[in-house]
Parts: sequence; structure tokens; C-alpha cells
Amino acid sequence: MSFFGSRWVATPEVDELDPAELPPSFRAAGVACGLKGGGGTDLALLACDADAVESALLLTRNAAAAAPIRVCRDECDAGAIRGAVVNSGNANAATGEQGYRDAVAMRDAAAEALELDPRALAVAETGVIGVPLAIDDVVRGIGEAAAAMDPRGGDGFAEAIMTTDRTPKRCAVRAAGITVSAQAKGAGMIEPGYATMLCFVQTDASIPDADAALRAAVGTSFERITVDGQMSTNDTVLLQASGEAGRELPDGLLDAILLQLALEIVADGEGSTRVARVEVREAGSASEAERVARAIANSPLVKTALYGRDPNWGRVAQAAGMALAGESLEELGPDHIDASELGGDADEVELSVRLGRGTYSAHVYTSDLTPEYIRINAEYTT
Amino acid sequence: MSFFGSRWVATPEVDELDPAELPPSFRAAGVACGLKGGGGTDLALLACDADAVESALLLTRNAAAAAPIRVCRDECDAGAIRGAVVNSGNANAATGEQGYRDAVAMRDAAAEALELDPRALAVAETGVIGVPLAIDDVVRGIGEAAAAMDPRGGDGFAEAIMTTDRTPKRCAVRAAGITVSAQAKGAGMIEPGYATMLCFVQTDASIPDADAALRAAVGTSFERITVDGQMSTNDTVLLQASGEAGRELPDGLLDAILLQLALEIVADGEGSTRVARVEVREAGSASEAERVARAIANSPLVKTALYGRDPNWGRVAQAAGMALAGESLEELGPDHIDASELGGDADEVELSVRLGRGTYSAHVYTSDLTPEYIRINAEYTT
Repeated sequence: MSFFGSRWVATPEVDELDPAELPPSFRAAGVACGLKGGGGTDLALLACDADAVESALLLTRNAAAAAPIRVCRDECDAGAIRGAVVNSGNANAATGEQGYRDAVAMRDAAAEALELDPRALAVAETGVIGVPLAIDDVVRGIGEAAAAMDPRGGDGFAEAIMTTDRTPKRCAVRAAGITVSAQAKGAGMIEPGYATMLCFVQTDASIPDADAALRAAVGTSFERITVDGQMSTNDTVLLQASGEAGRELPDGLLDAILLQLALEIVADGEGSTRVARVEVREAGSASEAERVARAIANSPLVKTALYGRDPNWGRVAQAAGMALAGESLEELGPDHIDASELGGDADEVELSVRLGRGTYSAHVYTSDLTPEYIRINAEYTT
Repeated sequence: MSFFGSRWVATPEVDELDPAELPPSFRAAGVACGLKGGGGTDLALLACDADAVESALLLTRNAAAAAPIRVCRDECDAGAIRGAVVNSGNANAATGEQGYRDAVAMRDAAAEALELDPRALAVAETGVIGVPLAIDDVVRGIGEAAAAMDPRGGDGFAEAIMTTDRTPKRCAVRAAGITVSAQAKGAGMIEPGYATMLCFVQTDASIPDADAALRAAVGTSFERITVDGQMSTNDTVLLQASGEAGRELPDGLLDAILLQLALEIVADGEGSTRVARVEVREAGSASEAERVARAIANSPLVKTALYGRDPNWGRVAQAAGMALAGESLEELGPDHIDASELGGDADEVELSVRLGRGTYSAHVYTSDLTPEYIRINAEYTT
């Protein structure tokens, strides 16, 4: 079975590799340093040994951003990231000045172990919030991970960044003389935190404007998904391109990989059983299309109808009407709203609305709301 | 036990009457016309026989508003409403031109039966959406209700407007020589629709500016509650004041009644077991305070923590940070967020956040998110 399993991803012409493989000059490892309890791997390192690396780093805009986000913002050369140090099991969020110092210490330890400039290291964390980071354990783990770095370390890296993800999310592909690998996690629940999304992409292709390429690909993937409308304190996406292959990335490949990973995150949303693509057409403006699509995608009534396999177009009309409160709207009936796929057996369904107000469109991918979501999020007590 | 049971309502100095009682000159009735199935009452009439009635009528701003809302908007004298005709069991929403004609026919039948000018009749409906109204049954019910009109009809009226409300929500009080009665329903689930809120208030006091008084009272009650962040297609609030008592309404009484009713709606939210008052202080502007309070109150992570009795301040920090995305915010820790009451046994709990950005405050009342919410909303199939 292909990695590109979603109906919404145009499968690119690639050879799929063992997802443990990384492009030439990249190495990675994942080890257990004790943050997670239970002995799961929770400390991951990634590095590129190429002479020059182009990189792009996108970080959450949450105003309560975690310490690693603030360290990345303040103390990294976002365009020249050589390596990354990541832990799962502790988000190091809402941990004050000590949290910031710990994230810097973690970054510095990784830089020393990997013999890299500290400003070329990104740091990412995900897990419990409001709890001091066991920095000594993390530093010891960094040493162990540095000794275990492997060109086939993609799988170990992908597993060590997981929290309650049901499956690791990663791939490695080769196409047109270049290799791309990627690892992601989310939007699994984090004791007792929230759905953080992390994603790392490595390639030996050259990318003339890595920041623009990453922003574009994120714009059609991670920016298009919602599990519960909640923006995390820790979201991070890192793209690194060594350029060693001497060729550019094939058009659309980065977008396809990130969209597939984004859809896997939605499908693995807390307790989720189905994914819907909500499309709004004939909106009066781009922002209106976006607003209506998000109102529908985040409506708990639509999300429970998705779970209940109920083709309930009335709830779609209500959510759209709410997003357009106070404006004039022709009555939305079954001829405007196609919710029929909600009633079927498919795990990926489409839901579309035609507003009759203009020519703009937008779409958002969303998961269903299930009893398991409540169980995961309520039946844990700090 | 007093009607004014919430910790957040300042109990006014009143005599509480049997809630069936209405002020002089008001009459009401509720009958079964067959919309609900099971024989429950589902058709309600209300009328005032006084010479002059001051009224105010507030309607949902949802752009997909139901037929009765559009009829009220287009064809009622909102300041001089003498009577109301209400059905439960069918919202007459997303029912097209026929739905509009049915709502007009319903209004006209009530006007004829009550011998009132059609423009002095309000029409309200709540229930299933997208289903044609059985107008013949409704008209027959109007005839029966008109024959059953009673000065002690408040209870019958309150019961006939219920959908899946667990209890009727109504009161009658006397104070300073005037009488006020009120009936409300919501935010119970409606097959297979959404949480519509209806409220009717009658008094023999005079209210110099009924519209301003109602807007003010709604602003601190129904506008301050959220069950699932969803704006209904059918929300309606009607205030009628006959002025026959020759006295004005005591200060604060209307506000106290509407706030208690609003809190009962939240407490009776779909599957809800607890209510929280979310207060945001030290915001940089009024709109910022409001935005942060609503983000916290509507966060499914906060609502599941409320259900799980988990004093999870981290989720509060995350929701506040999301509402302030891209802005500068000092780190929100336990010294900024008091979520301790979430962990206790109380059914009404307070949750407060201090942003440290200014002097503005806002508060919102919200319910918890429970497995029962999912069951109610998912395990029904159209």
C-alpha cells in the first residue's frame, strides 16, 4: 500500500523507500530518556552533515507559546538549521524563565554533541504542560542519541516524537534523482495538554526559496486541518534541504507529502474515526469562504453528525448561517448542500456547500467528534 | 427553594408566585397538535388583552434564519406585539418559500382566533429542521389553544415550547406592586436540529423603553451563555409590558430573571452536568476580553476538563494564547489562572484568568462537554 493513501492526495510519481531511510548526509536517532514513563522513546536527534543546508522553520503563533518555540524564534538561524533536538512527554510550556533556560540548555547540549553551531539547532518539545523539564535526563538522552545517529534513523526519530499518536507518521521517497523523507506527529492528546503538531522534512534536493516552498505546502496541508479548532502552544514544522543532489524538488512533491501527513494527523485525531473535506463554494470573498468552511468544520454538531453517519445538511446550513450572521443569504437547502457522503461507509467523505454569493472557494479537513474524544480529554486528572 | 437558585444571580426582593400565573390581562395555553409525536404539548398561544402593550422582540442574526424569524422581521410591529403563537417539534427552518407561507398562515390563524391585528402577533418555532410544517395540524391546534386560554396558563405555555429540555423553565414573581412572568426553553437538542433558545416575558409594569431594557437584560444573560458556540436559526426573545399596574419595573428585576433563565438553559445544555463562569480580567480592550473569554468557554479541551473535574489551567492558557495569536503576552501560569474550582464538587464553578495587558474584563457562562452530548447529537439519524 502506498504512503499516499488519501483520496485527496494526488499520488506523485515516486519510488517509496523504507521510511527509516534518510537522504544522504542526514542522520537521526530516537532514544528513551525517561520523560514518558513506561520506557518509550522520547528523545530524538536529527542532523545534516552536508556543507550547506537551506532550511525553513514555521512556528505556532499562539501567544502562550512554549519555551522551545520562543528559543527557536529568538536564538535560531531559521534559514540555516543543521539539526534538531526534540523530546516528547513534556511540552515545556507555561514553565516560565526556567523553562526557557532548560530549552536553551537542551539546544546547547545537542549542539555540543553534534558539533554544530547552537544557532543551527532547532528545539521542539511536546507533551505535558506546566511541568518543569527533567533537563538532566534530557541531556543524558542527547548524549545517547548522538552516539546512535544513523542514516537509517528516520523510523526511530518518528517514533520518539510521538505522544498518543496511534501510529508513526513518516515516509521516504525517491524521484527524479532526489530523496525526501519526512516525520510528523499529532494531533494525539498529550497528558494533560493539547494537540501539538510537529513535522520534519529532509531532502538532498535544492530548494531555491525554502521558506516560500514550506509556507506554500503548509498552507495547503497543516493550515487546512482542524481536530478541535485549538491552536497548540508547540506546533513546529522544519524543512531542511542539503542541495547535494544538484537538482530541484519535483513540483508538487512537498505539497503531496505534507498533505498526506496532515490528513494522517486528522485521521489520528483524538478518538477520531472519520475525516471530512468541507468545501465552501460561491462565497463572496476569500475570507468569507474561509470563515464559513471553518465554522462548519469546527461545529460540534457537524462533527457529531460525521461520527453518527448522519447526512444532516441542516446543521451545515446552521453553521454557515452563523458564520454569516447579520448578512443576507439565500436559503440553504439540499440543493445548496451535499452532505450525502456523511451517511455512507467511507472513512474519508466530502461535504460541500454552495453559498450563491460569489466566486470564491475554500476547504478544510476535519475529524469527527466521538465519545472517545471526551474520554481521552476528560477522564484524565492532573 | 427559590427560582433564583444560581450563585451568580443576586436574588431580588420579590414574592414568588405559582409559575402558572400570568400578570393581569395576560392569558396563555399549550395544547398538543401532533407535531411532536408521543402526544406531548407542542402548540402554545399567548395574548394580552390590555388596551396598549409595549413590546420588544429580539431575533437571531443567523443568516440562515428560519421562516418564523423572517416573518417576525418583515411583518410584525415589534414594538406593539399583543400575542405570540409558538410551536415546538418543527423549527420550520430551511423550508423555503412554502415555509414562509406556512409561518404567515400560522400567524394569521392565531390573529383570527385571538381577534388581534396580524401585525401584533409574533410567531416562533423550534424543532426539526428542513421538514415541511404540518400547517393543518398547527391551525387546528391554534383553535384548540385559543379556546383554552387561561390567566393561569403560564405553565402550560412553558411546557408546550419545550423540546428536549429536561425541565420547564419559568417563573412568576410580584414586587413593588407589579407582576412579572417568564417562560424559556433551550438549549436542548432538537431532532435533528440545534439548540434554539426561546424566551417570553410578560409584565403589567410599564417600561418606558422596552427595547433598550430588553437589550440590556439580554446582553447580560442570553448573550453571555454558550453551550457549543452554535448560533441557532430560531432564537427569539419577546418582552411585553401592559403598563396596567401604573408602576415601573424595579431596577434589576428583568436582568435577574433573564440571567436565571439563561443559566438554567446552560445547565440544561445537551448532556451538561456543570456550569462554569469564565472571567477574563486585565485585557487590553473590551473586545479582547470578550474574544479570550469566548475562546476559553468554547474550547472543547476546557469543557472536557470541566466535565472531568480537572483543574487544568494549561488548557486555559492555551485557549487564551490562541485567542491572542500573534500578540505579545506574558506567560500565563498558575498565578494568572485560577482553575481550582474545576476540581471541586460544585455544579457551578468559577474560572478566572488575568491577562496583565490592561483594565478590561468580560465573562461568559459555559457548560461542560460530556459523552451524553455526543450520544444526543450523533446517535440520531435523519
